[in-house]
Amino acid sequence: MTTQDILRRAKAAAPRLAIASTQTKNNALLLMAQALEEHTQQILRENALDMQAAREHISEVMLDRLCLTESRIKAMADGIRQVAELPDPVGRVRASHTHPGGMTIEKVGIPMGVVAIIYESRPNVTSDAAALALKSGNACVLRGGKEAFRSANAIVEAIGQGLQKAGLPAELVQLVQDTSRESARELMTAVGLVDLLIPRGGAGLIRSCTENAKVPCIQTGTGICHIYVDQAADQEKALNILENAKTSRPSVCNAAEVCLVHQAIAAEFLPKLHARLVLDRKETPVQLRLDGAAQAIIPGTPAESGDFDTEFLDYILAVAVVQDTQAAIDHIAAHSTGHSEAIITQDEAAAEQFTRAVDSAAVYVNCSTRFTDGGEFGLGCEMGISTQKLHARGPMGLEELCSYKYLIRGNGQTR
Amino acid sequence: MTTQDILRRAKAAAPRLAIASTQTKNNALLLMAQALEEHTQQILRENALDMQAAREHISEVMLDRLCLTESRIKAMADGIRQVAELPDPVGRVRASHTHPGGMTIEKVGIPMGVVAIIYESRPNVTSDAAALALKSGNACVLRGGKEAFRSANAIVEAIGQGLQKAGLPAELVQLVQDTSRESARELMTAVGLVDLLIPRGGAGLIRSCTENAKVPCIQTGTGICHIYVDQAADQEKALNILENAKTSRPSVCNAAEVCLVHQAIAAEFLPKLHARLVLDRKETPVQLRLDGAAQAIIPGTPAESGDFDTEFLDYILAVAVVQDTQAAIDHIAAHSTGHSEAIITQDEAAAEQFTRAVDSAAVYVNCSTRFTDGGEFGLGCEMGISTQKLHARGPMGLEELCSYKYLIRGNGQTR
Repeated sequence: MTTQDILRRAKAAAPRLAIASTQTKNNALLLMAQALEEHTQQILRENALDMQAAREHISEVMLDRLCLTESRIKAMADGIRQVAELPDPVGRVRASHTHPGGMTIEKVGIPMGVVAIIYESRPNVTSDAAALALKSGNACVLRGGKEAFRSANAIVEAIGQGLQKAGLPAELVQLVQDTSRESARELMTAVGLVDLLIPRGGAGLIRSCTENAKVPCIQTGTGICHIYVDQAADQEKALNILENAKTSRPSVCNAAEVCLVHQAIAAEFLPKLHARLVLDRKETPVQLRLDGAAQAIIPGTPAESGDFDTEFLDYILAVAVVQDTQAAIDHIAAHSTGHSEAIITQDEAAAEQFTRAVDSAAVYVNCSTRFTDGGEFGLGCEMGISTQKLHARGPMGLEELCSYKYLIRGNGQTR
Repeated sequence: MTTQDILRRAKAAAPRLAIASTQTKNNALLLMAQALEEHTQQILRENALDMQAAREHISEVMLDRLCLTESRIKAMADGIRQVAELPDPVGRVRASHTHPGGMTIEKVGIPMGVVAIIYESRPNVTSDAAALALKSGNACVLRGGKEAFRSANAIVEAIGQGLQKAGLPAELVQLVQDTSRESARELMTAVGLVDLLIPRGGAGLIRSCTENAKVPCIQTGTGICHIYVDQAADQEKALNILENAKTSRPSVCNAAEVCLVHQAIAAEFLPKLHARLVLDRKETPVQLRLDGAAQAIIPGTPAESGDFDTEFLDYILAVAVVQDTQAAIDHIAAHSTGHSEAIITQDEAAAEQFTRAVDSAAVYVNCSTRFTDGGEFGLGCEMGISTQKLHARGPMGLEELCSYKYLIRGNGQTR
């Protein structure tokens, strides 16, 4: 089926979901989760084929993103069940106002309509996106990466069976059958068929959307996240946070890519950093890419031009020495993708200066950037991390997949 | 000065406003209002020149939009003072969450940065937009229509003096000095310099934005507003509402352009409509453009193709007879711009069906579409009426000119 056909089917199916009751939607979610678990063997089989094909040309950490196991599928199903537990954003009265003339004015949540998502190789995005779209009353059209195509098809097949058991059309969750750039381009320009496009991916995809998208679009995902270790940092906490932010899951967008160190403590802190991230880590030492000042203190790879503008998604950390908090803020303004940044300091004034001036979706004081996540922020699961300012910023949960309308009830009032 | 120069000056000035205190901003607003009143004579003089140049080629209702008087300038200044009274959206904690690990997670309002507005001939938009941008912490770049260019320049000049008296740079409110299409195109493509573009205008401008905009954009203004008179309508109320929605200010976007009448009451209601809007109005009778069924009942102009897709902004009303509420909903889905629609009925089931299914920014039961307005909805004044679903819908007040970021404060937490 062509991408246009898929979009038209989604648009035709969407109004029925838009007026579905919360109970209908929750029931469908539970049946989707059940169907997913029942299809575990088929999904693992298809995932094994994807893994086999991908093994030759993608890195170990990217393979980890692609890999499914029985427990990961169970976690995906549980993720869907968690979405069923969340409050329904559709029909929720966000604000209300009584006009002096006596009318009631209510601002009420509504679905966007058809949400299209372009993503890469993590198969769990398929089920997360489907669950969030369904609960928020939106039909979704998924366009995954070619590495995960078989896995995604198997997941969508299972979900479709769950939907049909719930009496809803399978067209509410569809996978684009073409993983070429052309299909992404088609989604970007499908004016009137796509109410919201969410591209999740690398800088190339984001740039392509900025240049080509004619439909409403929210850019997500690219995370060049910085951790700034201030002169007033608790250095032991800084080491724990850096190790966690860099190594707990290097392939995700909220992992740290850059460490900035205040020059007053560089000579003391950098050797500790080197010990913790390199010497103490036998199996997966972190490669440090150092600016000139850091090279004078610890061994490591000299940073090349571009290393401070790269989302490594690997056991690599760029390290620079900065003069003060303002210099850290300026460096972040020049190099950040607007995702997540942290300051490690016991100095409240430095923390205040940093949180006020850094213009990113999530700004941390004394904790790991790895917390930027819909679940951690209390939204249930998430559709991605918005790095733009319009409509949604940071983790996108159910509310962010909705719009609203005003309902005004009167009794003959005129103005 | 070129448009690029103006944008760069705005971008350079914006960070200072972003961290300005509420008191600084309110003080600036009061001084802007005062400066506006003090410049009344200069503004009226420039407005008279605009009016003189425009008189030959624009309609009477468009001239009314352009015309300034002493009392209209006073109203503009009072509008600015009202914005000073409104709560500051910047720094407002929109939501907060305590993570099980003990961190506090706050969702905090922030300015967008540089807001650009493309608008037409209403000079009061100049001061409304400047006031809302300033209070929401945004630098603004205004690109008005050529008919109002002299008036807008005089208003911006006055506002700039107010800003400077308050110790803020006049670059926070600037007027583009080129009113050609080229300058609109420049704003649409100024990636990195414009954080939010708000085009206010006709269908041509909106289409141009959809096709050309590379910067975040919110489309506003075009209103083909419908009033559906159900078979269970209180017909006297329907007549009052229709007269109000059509004739109280025909040049504005929330004026009604189309009346749909349930076929069961058409023979009874349409003659009353004809009497009220045509016969009883000696000075400004409404021209009715009738579909075939309506023509069989009352005199009027036969509707031509396009009359149900036109924002007349004049004493003209397109009238059609529909089979039932669903047919009214379908007609609206096919012809509306998504601005404001009303149902007049005493039947709660019909009202429920209509409000649920009609996908417009404001959906009314038994009152006039003329209420779609930031002031009427309790937002203070407004930056325009969004007719899109992303970010903002309906009247855009201070909150809609902001984004947010998450601030997470911890004590060494890792994930």
